[in-house]
Amino acid sequence: MKVYFDNAATTPLSEDVWKAMEPFYLEHFGNPSSTHSFGRKTKNAIESARREIASAMNVLPGQIIFTGSGTEGNNTILSSAVQKGVNHIITSPIEHHAVLHTLDFLSIKEGIKISKVELDEDGNVNLSSLEQLLKTNSEDKKLVSLMHVNNEIGNILPISEVVELCHKFNTLFHSDTVQSIGTLPLDLKSTPIDFATCSAHKFHGPKGVGFMYVKDSSLLESFIHGGSQERGHRAGTENVAGIIGMSRALKSATENLNKNYDHLTLIRNYFIEKISQIDSNIKVIGNQPPKVSPKILNLCIPSALVDDMLLFNLDLRGIAASGGSACSSGSNQGSHVINEIKNLRNCLAIRFSFSKYNTIEEVDYVIAQIKEILKK
Amino acid sequence: MKVYFDNAATTPLSEDVWKAMEPFYLEHFGNPSSTHSFGRKTKNAIESARREIASAMNVLPGQIIFTGSGTEGNNTILSSAVQKGVNHIITSPIEHHAVLHTLDFLSIKEGIKISKVELDEDGNVNLSSLEQLLKTNSEDKKLVSLMHVNNEIGNILPISEVVELCHKFNTLFHSDTVQSIGTLPLDLKSTPIDFATCSAHKFHGPKGVGFMYVKDSSLLESFIHGGSQERGHRAGTENVAGIIGMSRALKSATENLNKNYDHLTLIRNYFIEKISQIDSNIKVIGNQPPKVSPKILNLCIPSALVDDMLLFNLDLRGIAASGGSACSSGSNQGSHVINEIKNLRNCLAIRFSFSKYNTIEEVDYVIAQIKEILKK
Repeated sequence: MKVYFDNAATTPLSEDVWKAMEPFYLEHFGNPSSTHSFGRKTKNAIESARREIASAMNVLPGQIIFTGSGTEGNNTILSSAVQKGVNHIITSPIEHHAVLHTLDFLSIKEGIKISKVELDEDGNVNLSSLEQLLKTNSEDKKLVSLMHVNNEIGNILPISEVVELCHKFNTLFHSDTVQSIGTLPLDLKSTPIDFATCSAHKFHGPKGVGFMYVKDSSLLESFIHGGSQERGHRAGTENVAGIIGMSRALKSATENLNKNYDHLTLIRNYFIEKISQIDSNIKVIGNQPPKVSPKILNLCIPSALVDDMLLFNLDLRGIAASGGSACSSGSNQGSHVINEIKNLRNCLAIRFSFSKYNTIEEVDYVIAQIKEILKK
Repeated sequence: MKVYFDNAATTPLSEDVWKAMEPFYLEHFGNPSSTHSFGRKTKNAIESARREIASAMNVLPGQIIFTGSGTEGNNTILSSAVQKGVNHIITSPIEHHAVLHTLDFLSIKEGIKISKVELDEDGNVNLSSLEQLLKTNSEDKKLVSLMHVNNEIGNILPISEVVELCHKFNTLFHSDTVQSIGTLPLDLKSTPIDFATCSAHKFHGPKGVGFMYVKDSSLLESFIHGGSQERGHRAGTENVAGIIGMSRALKSATENLNKNYDHLTLIRNYFIEKISQIDSNIKVIGNQPPKVSPKILNLCIPSALVDDMLLFNLDLRGIAASGGSACSSGSNQGSHVINEIKNLRNCLAIRFSFSKYNTIEEVDYVIAQIKEILKK
């Protein structure tokens, strides 16, 4: 039996997404920048995809800009903010590397001041700390960048409170929403964040495509220069099939959001219940529902019970789970997120992350395998 | 009848490419950065694709870095050069906007000096002018960026002479090879250029994926920051299916290079022969073979014969051709390339560009339609 419990890293493509993409590989191949019928066909298709995505997020089509990845979106927004005069960026120590490493670069290259909010013991942003940072250095032009859902522990940012706080201090707010869009409800009209990023492969869409939401496009400077695609905001021939796939995947995710949310919650709760029965010292890292994404479950397994071969042994039994995020699991460093969580001593952190395709039977299988491995 | 003669803008996906990509949508979906079996499967696949691409270009796998587009490759290489201390970039006025607009940005943002070589009356780089620019301002750290095949007129740069000249003056040489890779022979070992860029959709591969060739990766600074993909050179989850498709498309293009070259030459020559019979004042813009890519034919049709509705009228008859490049055809400006070609007065420039799928019958149809349109 093969069980894929690493859906925070990437998700399998849905069949309906595949069917939507297929004609844009096999029939409609025109360059959307071409004015002839071949080009108009694909131009219309990507503009229709833009409208569908905008509708799913409750924003205007002109506020959606296609990218090649969530990472590219984060790089674009942060670099653009600096071009536009931002000289101080407030973030957290547990952001994705697409944000943290971009900020490292901007700090060295452009001399941008970087401040990091304090976290509570479960890894949540301390809002008083954020407010304090917003208050001080009032001569700085600031931007706040905080992810909506943490990709390793699943904690949800109280995004409405954060955006209100930022705007109270006339500060722009960017959120890396890669792990929330398609899984959690997010209405960008009622939650008026300034910039958001999305990656299609996190919700059963294809890899190699994403989008940025930019509330006011006059605040965006181009990052990739060249042709006039994306109204001059992002050059390069559009990944047409990818964009169509992303739009279909988001539509499906949005339409089935509640159903999928309930399913993920069921799976996650059942997993916790069953693993607690193996040993009551196995703890969940991060928040309790509803302050956590039901897609992500990060467990702290006491070192007394397990060695660091657990992931390897699960893999041998066909089970995919993760240590750090996929983006850092290829490297040999420990997770920068887990390292920031207090009260985690002498335990191994392991992330299981779920999708609509996972079943209770799969949980039973995985629990049985973990039981066997821990016994040895 | 529909005829697609705009293959310099983009090409239809080959069936073999499609078949190679399909399993990476339907079966193998793991994130290549994940260490479990799902991830190893796709990691192995993209590394195998990297080896195949390296082999086709006669370079080492470590010299190939995947990107989301040719444009991204050009942006990365030029921005990286500036990070590495280059303060003077020599280019031509007829480069693709992915180069020219990036240089505009670097000039304003970083104060980089930009020099442009002179062109001869057919739009070729004047090598004496290039040598003169390389000689002067010897205290500058320079890079030369010249495209291998011009995307609008098809002229081929004498790339071996240029690389020799650059290296004689200890200057790095970047070539936008987007229009040559897959169409013309290019052995990067015997033509030791320092940086090259490629886009898969120009040779029957998918959109949204490309690669950079970087001779010495210690000369490359990251442009998109984040995870450690591409050995830290380009962050963001890899477009796995796209990379597999690109590798398959390049393999096919390389294996059939001579056959396809001959076919394109046949089509192009036949087109010229037939259109000259309509009116002998219709002239070919740019070089004569073999100094031009057989994929591209740009014609100067005297204004006395035609109005600027020609493209529109061809489109009405199902024929796709192009004014400027696709990347600028959506905008209302004239072509910056055609504007640089001397001796083009009172004529309309129109680009026909061919692929292995085009036929003599299609040429006959298009010629008959042009004849009818010109009569009116």
